[in-house]
Amino acid sequence: MRETGTTYRQGSVTPVVRICVVGCGAVGSLFAANLSLLEDVEVWAFDLNELHVAAMNRDGLRLSGAGEVVGRPRATSDPAKLPPCDFGLVATKAMHTEPAIEATAHAFVDGYVATVQNGLGNEETLARHVERVIRGTTFPAGKLLEPGHVQWDVQGDTTLGPYDERVPLAEVERLADACTRAGMPAEAVEDARGPQWRKVIFNASTNPIGALTGLTHGRVCERPDLRTLVTGLVDEGKAVAAAQGIELDADPEELIDHAAKPEVAYDHKASMLQDIEARRTTEVDYLNGGIVHFGGEHGVPTPLNAAIRALVKGVEASWTQS
Amino acid sequence: MRETGTTYRQGSVTPVVRICVVGCGAVGSLFAANLSLLEDVEVWAFDLNELHVAAMNRDGLRLSGAGEVVGRPRATSDPAKLPPCDFGLVATKAMHTEPAIEATAHAFVDGYVATVQNGLGNEETLARHVERVIRGTTFPAGKLLEPGHVQWDVQGDTTLGPYDERVPLAEVERLADACTRAGMPAEAVEDARGPQWRKVIFNASTNPIGALTGLTHGRVCERPDLRTLVTGLVDEGKAVAAAQGIELDADPEELIDHAAKPEVAYDHKASMLQDIEARRTTEVDYLNGGIVHFGGEHGVPTPLNAAIRALVKGVEASWTQS
Repeated sequence: MRETGTTYRQGSVTPVVRICVVGCGAVGSLFAANLSLLEDVEVWAFDLNELHVAAMNRDGLRLSGAGEVVGRPRATSDPAKLPPCDFGLVATKAMHTEPAIEATAHAFVDGYVATVQNGLGNEETLARHVERVIRGTTFPAGKLLEPGHVQWDVQGDTTLGPYDERVPLAEVERLADACTRAGMPAEAVEDARGPQWRKVIFNASTNPIGALTGLTHGRVCERPDLRTLVTGLVDEGKAVAAAQGIELDADPEELIDHAAKPEVAYDHKASMLQDIEARRTTEVDYLNGGIVHFGGEHGVPTPLNAAIRALVKGVEASWTQS
Repeated sequence: MRETGTTYRQGSVTPVVRICVVGCGAVGSLFAANLSLLEDVEVWAFDLNELHVAAMNRDGLRLSGAGEVVGRPRATSDPAKLPPCDFGLVATKAMHTEPAIEATAHAFVDGYVATVQNGLGNEETLARHVERVIRGTTFPAGKLLEPGHVQWDVQGDTTLGPYDERVPLAEVERLADACTRAGMPAEAVEDARGPQWRKVIFNASTNPIGALTGLTHGRVCERPDLRTLVTGLVDEGKAVAAAQGIELDADPEELIDHAAKPEVAYDHKASMLQDIEARRTTEVDYLNGGIVHFGGEHGVPTPLNAAIRALVKGVEASWTQS
């Protein structure tokens, strides 16, 4: 077991695992708040939103909705304040991975850095800055309501696995065990690409369709022509996964149909639609763009994913004058 | 020469050709105003916009911009008022073809009905209601500024040809000759499908991309990923045209690159984008939908056109609650 960041609490003999959540938006906050409840875990929350950081340090980090929690992470927006940590848990939007890990890598010189982000390519970005990377996929979701307060919309599982041979499964298990005990069920597996690609294919095939049309998930799925387009996108994603020897843990089509039910997420506005409505840069480069990238590397054509990516990037470009 | 609708003007021996423009929006008004200047042509203008009809009858039909004209068509929104006509010239939006020809077919029992509309399938719709149909494609464009007043944005050619063997080329020539003499250059050809498909492929490959992204024609074309998508759509359209033995009169790609020039139409907002911004039903069913339809009939796959059509229909659906 690596010990570098492990400390002992004053007056206690419990070994403490130190985890730094990098990016405390909705998903990062779910991990930070829940993990901070554990006796044997010390949680740091790194985020650039100074109001959020101040609120967390003053009043704690409150979750409401799918669970009621007030956590007490040590929050900072100054990377120099971060001590050496056993684990990083990166939860920024995919386009912020590079600057976030660049700023914080010093805290993980002897630790492990896991990503629980959306999209493809985050592991590769992290691996350019830190030695030991853990691939991860997480399904819980929420929304930052105000500084220090996050709405917990959906509970869900997390899957973690070594990015390469520099990470022993035992270390992944240590992180997964902490998450599970904190109420965020996580599993450590040798190859986490199956759930990761299932989620990426799900997101890439549905989110941008909602974003481009303005329709909720359920309304996208009940239009036969759009549902056919969704399946066309799914099929390209499956082909790219198969070409890499990735076995999906379940069919993304099932997830799509399940989410379309009125009692599940019929009325859900995809996060990418929320981004478009708020004129925020979307994650399309890491979803459809990722499928196109890996398709290109493995000789699998992905014309529909390329088309969808180009359209969403076009929408983003329309916000600025040429 | 068919003579049924031909009359003689009082005090004159000039044989008069009677032409009814069905749908006097921008394009219909360009034809109606210009044709009404000819001594030997009597023009009727049928339109459901009663303010426009009243203005035309009161003050004439004024064009300004690419040409300054005040025409004097006989305007009506009451189909029962229409006399038997030698020619109809249908210029409604494609989705209004059916009701428009249903209401006016009685005026063309012994005449010829030409379409100068956008999109595919208009000839088939007209042929369900009248005997003799002329296929047509026109490039002039404009905008209805106010009742009785149309901005003439672009001059351009018109190509007309028999829809089937029931229409002799001589009759098509008679109509083309009148248009040409009126300042709307028109050519009669045996097979007008080449220019028609060139224009449809141009429109289907560019208009909805502008509509979905909010970008002008020039900005669509300068983004390599969107320009690639445009070419993907063009290639599908070309394959469907080729499968029907249609020879395009020019490469739509040339038209697309030409229009992207700053001095041509770089800043042009596609009419479909204007429709989307005004929340009007678009012509996508007759553009991309037409390519998909004829592709299906001839076994040519058109996944990109199907995707684009589905997305635009999805946008239209988003304007109403489910």
